[in-house]
Amino acid sequence: MITVKDIARLCNVSPGTVSNIINGRPNVGEETRERVLRVIQETGYQPNYFASSMRKQSSRTIGIIVEDLKQFTTTPIVVTIMAYCEEMGYRTILLNLRMYDRWQDTWFQDEKMLESALIPALKEITAIRVDGLIYVAGHGRTLSCFPEDFKIPTVIAYAASENDRYPSILIDDENGGYDMGKYLLSKGHTKISVIAGVPDNMHSDDRLAGFRRALSEAGVVYHPEWTFHGTWLRESGYLLAEKALGTGATAIWCMNDQMAAGVYDYVYESGMVIGKDISIAGFDNMENAEYMYPRLTTNGLPLRRIGRRSAETMIHMLEEEGWRPEGMRTWIRCQMTEGNSVADIREKG
Amino acid sequence: MITVKDIARLCNVSPGTVSNIINGRPNVGEETRERVLRVIQETGYQPNYFASSMRKQSSRTIGIIVEDLKQFTTTPIVVTIMAYCEEMGYRTILLNLRMYDRWQDTWFQDEKMLESALIPALKEITAIRVDGLIYVAGHGRTLSCFPEDFKIPTVIAYAASENDRYPSILIDDENGGYDMGKYLLSKGHTKISVIAGVPDNMHSDDRLAGFRRALSEAGVVYHPEWTFHGTWLRESGYLLAEKALGTGATAIWCMNDQMAAGVYDYVYESGMVIGKDISIAGFDNMENAEYMYPRLTTNGLPLRRIGRRSAETMIHMLEEEGWRPEGMRTWIRCQMTEGNSVADIREKG
Repeated sequence: MITVKDIARLCNVSPGTVSNIINGRPNVGEETRERVLRVIQETGYQPNYFASSMRKQSSRTIGIIVEDLKQFTTTPIVVTIMAYCEEMGYRTILLNLRMYDRWQDTWFQDEKMLESALIPALKEITAIRVDGLIYVAGHGRTLSCFPEDFKIPTVIAYAASENDRYPSILIDDENGGYDMGKYLLSKGHTKISVIAGVPDNMHSDDRLAGFRRALSEAGVVYHPEWTFHGTWLRESGYLLAEKALGTGATAIWCMNDQMAAGVYDYVYESGMVIGKDISIAGFDNMENAEYMYPRLTTNGLPLRRIGRRSAETMIHMLEEEGWRPEGMRTWIRCQMTEGNSVADIREKG
Repeated sequence: MITVKDIARLCNVSPGTVSNIINGRPNVGEETRERVLRVIQETGYQPNYFASSMRKQSSRTIGIIVEDLKQFTTTPIVVTIMAYCEEMGYRTILLNLRMYDRWQDTWFQDEKMLESALIPALKEITAIRVDGLIYVAGHGRTLSCFPEDFKIPTVIAYAASENDRYPSILIDDENGGYDMGKYLLSKGHTKISVIAGVPDNMHSDDRLAGFRRALSEAGVVYHPEWTFHGTWLRESGYLLAEKALGTGATAIWCMNDQMAAGVYDYVYESGMVIGKDISIAGFDNMENAEYMYPRLTTNGLPLRRIGRRSAETMIHMLEEEGWRPEGMRTWIRCQMTEGNSVADIREKG
């Protein structure tokens, strides 16, 4: 079998030069390139699948690096990316950094942990010679460790890049909180207790800001003492339910469905009827929300639309050199899903 | 040079057992382990993984091809494979065939559809030069289209290969049905209606066979007219609930949690109390089962253990040339999870 070394000997150049030519790298003289390509053709040398695409300088493969495949937000984003890429004639390949799996909830406070997993993955994805990279975050935030000099066109989904060098597709948390506030007000609720996520968190802060904007527009006073911060986990909804009920609220809005499930657990024990004696709403529209009884009213994360927009942006960048989206950050709006967990308490007549 | 086979012969055990001991795997008796380790020491046998990796020009990368990343069984298998491979010093890379996404439920009746997606993926995984391939099926069955001449060491998870050339790691559906039957009998139920999956399906058939074995062992007559076939979907549980209740059964066993959720929907409408007036059990232990009220009693698919065993088998095959598991098909037992949906109706006293 003919190898790169054989080609190099026949052309009197180094194997590195042959490899540079096969892989479409610059800094090789035109005359040398032509000579080597002629010998490659004459000898019938077959570079592997990816290398052969590289003569055309394109592998038509998009790399996807996910922070954690186990995170419930990841799969819907990823499968939508894959579907669109395939539709456009691109293959996809996925690497999983396993951040939650390795370090639970500690890793997004210290980017060194992320860096230790990210840098080898970027090397690997470079070695596979993908045309572009879509990075799917497992936790919404502003990333600072994504290297500034990464050469492959990149789009970031579900988080933003600090340097704004890479287009980012994000959840519109602010409008998500706003839409939820408007919905609860439309059902007559003005005494609303909020079980927020952890403090100083992009999702918590932006959702709360939007919620307050809705109250303010309706002339309803916001009571900070009716807002409690949980940990996003079901148990924390359960533990905070008593406090939330103690405010005298007619509705409890939890900033994710898992904490809403914890409030359900507490309310079931208390004997009250959800959607009648007390109204409960969530956020995310996880599949689990469909299995709660009564079906939870929640605001659905636009995961498929984030995936689609990321893939569209990626392929647009690849197919039109130099193109970038107008704003480097794009926010996608959530979608309200009405269940039976919020009572309509408007006065009739 | 002394080989694993020589050690095996000297100790009168299989080469697989020797390899298990060398690689520190469990499920070897302590006495055997000590005897084998003594012989290894006496003969001066040196396992030499490094040399064998060098010969094969190892990339220390395992390819994972999944039939559909969206299928709920896939991610738990995949993330466990990834964790174990990483622990053993192997990277992983994933390709998604998107079978359900493309063709919904029609593709596993016609292997040509699968072949059209599988063959290009196998080419791609070959081009990336992985050391081994783990193929994760999205639907339990016997695969006939997996090529006989595929050169890369391969393990199949969640399905079996017709030609038994590739080790397969499968759910033990028969014992799964058996354990569920035993459990329901232990709570005093003898009139049990079954909502099975689609007929002529490996999961449905094997689970039912195990269930009948449990009844038979207990001397309880099986009534085929109390068994109904659904479509695995929640709606079909809802639609069959009336018939199941019409048999006068005290318990309804659904062969997946989604159909159990459909029965919940019907029972909620009827005003009966689940876990008191009627007992309901499921199968799979999807995450959703934790959000159903009352918490569903179900038999959990051993997805993480399937992933782990697939990865162990793969890496064992790579690190010990010629090694294969003793049986080419390995069945992993499900694990019962008790909720509050099955009443104990044994007569007291």
